[in-house]
Amino acid sequence: MQIDVLTLFPDMFAPLTQSLIGKAVEDGLLNLNLIDFRQYAHDKHQHVDDTPYGGGAGMLLKPDPLFEAMDAINEQDARSKRVILLDPAGRQFNQAAADELAHEDHLVFICGHYEGYDERIRTLVTDEFSLGDFVMTGGEIASMAMIDATARLLPGVLGNSVSPETDSFQNGLLEYPQYTRPAEYRGMAVPEVLQNGNHQLINRWRLKESLRRTYLRRPDLLEGLELDKDAQKLLREVRGEEDSKAAAARLNLDND
Amino acid sequence: MQIDVLTLFPDMFAPLTQSLIGKAVEDGLLNLNLIDFRQYAHDKHQHVDDTPYGGGAGMLLKPDPLFEAMDAINEQDARSKRVILLDPAGRQFNQAAADELAHEDHLVFICGHYEGYDERIRTLVTDEFSLGDFVMTGGEIASMAMIDATARLLPGVLGNSVSPETDSFQNGLLEYPQYTRPAEYRGMAVPEVLQNGNHQLINRWRLKESLRRTYLRRPDLLEGLELDKDAQKLLREVRGEEDSKAAAARLNLDND
Repeated sequence: MQIDVLTLFPDMFAPLTQSLIGKAVEDGLLNLNLIDFRQYAHDKHQHVDDTPYGGGAGMLLKPDPLFEAMDAINEQDARSKRVILLDPAGRQFNQAAADELAHEDHLVFICGHYEGYDERIRTLVTDEFSLGDFVMTGGEIASMAMIDATARLLPGVLGNSVSPETDSFQNGLLEYPQYTRPAEYRGMAVPEVLQNGNHQLINRWRLKESLRRTYLRRPDLLEGLELDKDAQKLLREVRGEEDSKAAAARLNLDND
Repeated sequence: MQIDVLTLFPDMFAPLTQSLIGKAVEDGLLNLNLIDFRQYAHDKHQHVDDTPYGGGAGMLLKPDPLFEAMDAINEQDARSKRVILLDPAGRQFNQAAADELAHEDHLVFICGHYEGYDERIRTLVTDEFSLGDFVMTGGEIASMAMIDATARLLPGVLGNSVSPETDSFQNGLLEYPQYTRPAEYRGMAVPEVLQNGNHQLINRWRLKESLRRTYLRRPDLLEGLELDKDAQKLLREVRGEEDSKAAAARLNLDND
């Protein structure tokens, strides 16, 4: 996969070289090309921003440096590509979007910065994404988040040690609780079932706790999910257990 | 504000020092303390992870290094603090959460990494947040996103040039389109109204286009928003215009 990033702060992407993504670049699974689009500014001070028409605070990214940077990318590789802008008005980025982008050959990320950008820059773009309903000082960290979430799905990136199939969301459920040594720490013990080595029981416990966490924290994820008979039975058990816990808690409250 | 970050990869936070947040640290508005919790590992190879009880792929963060790192933080500053874990099962981070955290004195971010962490680590935590329904290789980039979105709201961080009050979401609406020079670029012109200098007209145009973008892209944001009479009138205009556009498009389709 080829990923071009148009940014004024290419050094900000250093964290990607330290993570698993950096290893993917070394292994040739991913070509990450950071382009400082200030090189396409024309005046001698290399200005890439200017004041807004109609007044107002702040400086906006000018259209011409980004248009010319895209021209250069398209000259090198005429094939169609996804050109992604991070914008609060964009489509919410999620695991399905990461999956979708991981199947592309060529992605271009445009990082807005400063207080905003000229509206015409949007015409360069095939996809506007938002990480969520919050505002950051620039598009760099958000682009890194998207690149990280996307590139880890490329074949070979995670290696044999981990599989994205056991991730939260990948099977539609939140992940079950996990434990490692010591068996007891500051009075908190690892559940018995995980220590007894019966893998059928362990798998059922994990599925049930995955269902429980999803039921308690993200019941919206359960809607529309096709569960098999066994999972449906476990979910009924979880519902019964949690609903009587909640009823008992209300009763205690009433009795106080 | 004091922000402590517990991470195995403190160098990954270098991007924060390059952005406005780095300037806030220089100006003493923010104290950002990166703590490599590997220093709290006890064996000679400084292992911070171990295999999961009950089997399965991957390595989990052990509880003890993080518990001891938190002990050290609490010894230095006994006041209550928000301890934040980035987790896909957490509360969705948004602008309201950023506002809430920006009013705290002391935040601690715990960055999970590898394939997961021991469940008991959650007992250290006051808040679990998620950036969205997607999975990353670690918590570092997500923590940076939260720190960036939060710290930019601290008084003095954005300086005089920008005000967070004009952000998308801050008034409940998406931002209006913005333009800078040149007035025409590759056949695309800046709207007349922004060039004529009538600020009353400009403000109305901006409010209307803000309402239009929100109506078209994020109608959910309009629900529960208290608009004044003038904004309600503009929203009715937008609805009329966009609904007839959509009807005309359907008619064209039918006639083809």
